[in-house]
Amino acid sequence: MLNLYFAPHTCALATHIVLEEVGADYSTTRIDFDKGEQRSPEYLKVNPKGRVPALVTGQGVLTETPAMLVFVAQSFPKANLAPIDDPFAFAQVQSFNSYLCSHLHIAHAHRMRGHRWVEADDMHSIEAMQRKVPQSVGAAFEYIEKDLLKGPWVMGERYTICDAYLFTLAQWLEKDGVVPARIPRVIDHRRRMSQRAAVAKAIAQELAA
Amino acid sequence: MLNLYFAPHTCALATHIVLEEVGADYSTTRIDFDKGEQRSPEYLKVNPKGRVPALVTGQGVLTETPAMLVFVAQSFPKANLAPIDDPFAFAQVQSFNSYLCSHLHIAHAHRMRGHRWVEADDMHSIEAMQRKVPQSVGAAFEYIEKDLLKGPWVMGERYTICDAYLFTLAQWLEKDGVVPARIPRVIDHRRRMSQRAAVAKAIAQELAA
Repeated sequence: MLNLYFAPHTCALATHIVLEEVGADYSTTRIDFDKGEQRSPEYLKVNPKGRVPALVTGQGVLTETPAMLVFVAQSFPKANLAPIDDPFAFAQVQSFNSYLCSHLHIAHAHRMRGHRWVEADDMHSIEAMQRKVPQSVGAAFEYIEKDLLKGPWVMGERYTICDAYLFTLAQWLEKDGVVPARIPRVIDHRRRMSQRAAVAKAIAQELAA
Repeated sequence: MLNLYFAPHTCALATHIVLEEVGADYSTTRIDFDKGEQRSPEYLKVNPKGRVPALVTGQGVLTETPAMLVFVAQSFPKANLAPIDDPFAFAQVQSFNSYLCSHLHIAHAHRMRGHRWVEADDMHSIEAMQRKVPQSVGAAFEYIEKDLLKGPWVMGERYTICDAYLFTLAQWLEKDGVVPARIPRVIDHRRRMSQRAAVAKAIAQELAA
């Protein structure tokens, strides 16, 4: 039995969606960021990084979304959510996910997590980072729009773990100051994703938790 | 035939090492950052991201180190550099690599690439980011030292793609202001890696190119 530690409105949603898509038997545990639960001694035993998501499996705890997405896809091969047996196609999936985690998500994180990279009381730098977010996140989404999103799904005709991950990060783009009209294909992808039963169920579960 | 676009002293070295480890038939092309070749029209046709590394394969171009490392390992299965058939063990490999690309490398990048996240002429913020690097990169290495590096190799007895990646990022730690004495196991790993023939050959090729 799998258990996903999550907080609403975080990248944990990507793994949550994929758990729903594959029909996994899983439970969830909400970590309350407002109470600082991600830094509680109990949670740090689960994930010493003090972040979400974390996925408890029968073999141990996994962290880092790109790894967790492939793990779920590979553990439920019938759902066919990642072309693991085709090295090049799989590398394209991995490359997309790596770009999301190390580029798009990082650009976004400079809006609310600037203290990771400058002193927390340096308001000049914190605010300078925040001002750059519309540009840096916007450029990443425009690159996805133009070069990466093949359509109708990220990898073309085949729905994959990339779709759940892109949808998750696309939740935040308006608050990041990105102009939706500049990325119509990303917005259309987000709309179609929101109509999937697995996506609606994962979101509803997170908001009700 | 594979071709690796690289620049010396970048994370391209990780893929270069793995190409050597598996005995691949490959060539390399050096991109001269001093001349801004990563932004040349010719190179942007190869990699629109304008960065290294990029790996040209018979099926197309791949970018993003975690994806490239798995691609090479999976394409040369006899070298046994990633436990792709074991979902949990593979997820651990992927989680480690994802941490390096989205956390350690990103922390490091705030020393010389601060303009990605604030305006390039905002010297207060650029320098504030630089001052935080010893702490942020140091904390990541200390976490690796304490929790992730199983020993003798990253994943334990088995040498994997993770070792090439960790070694590559560990090239920069002194310049990042990290105190080597605080991470003796990482330093010992780096020393043992440097003694491997594949590693020495990849480094020699990059410096001679």
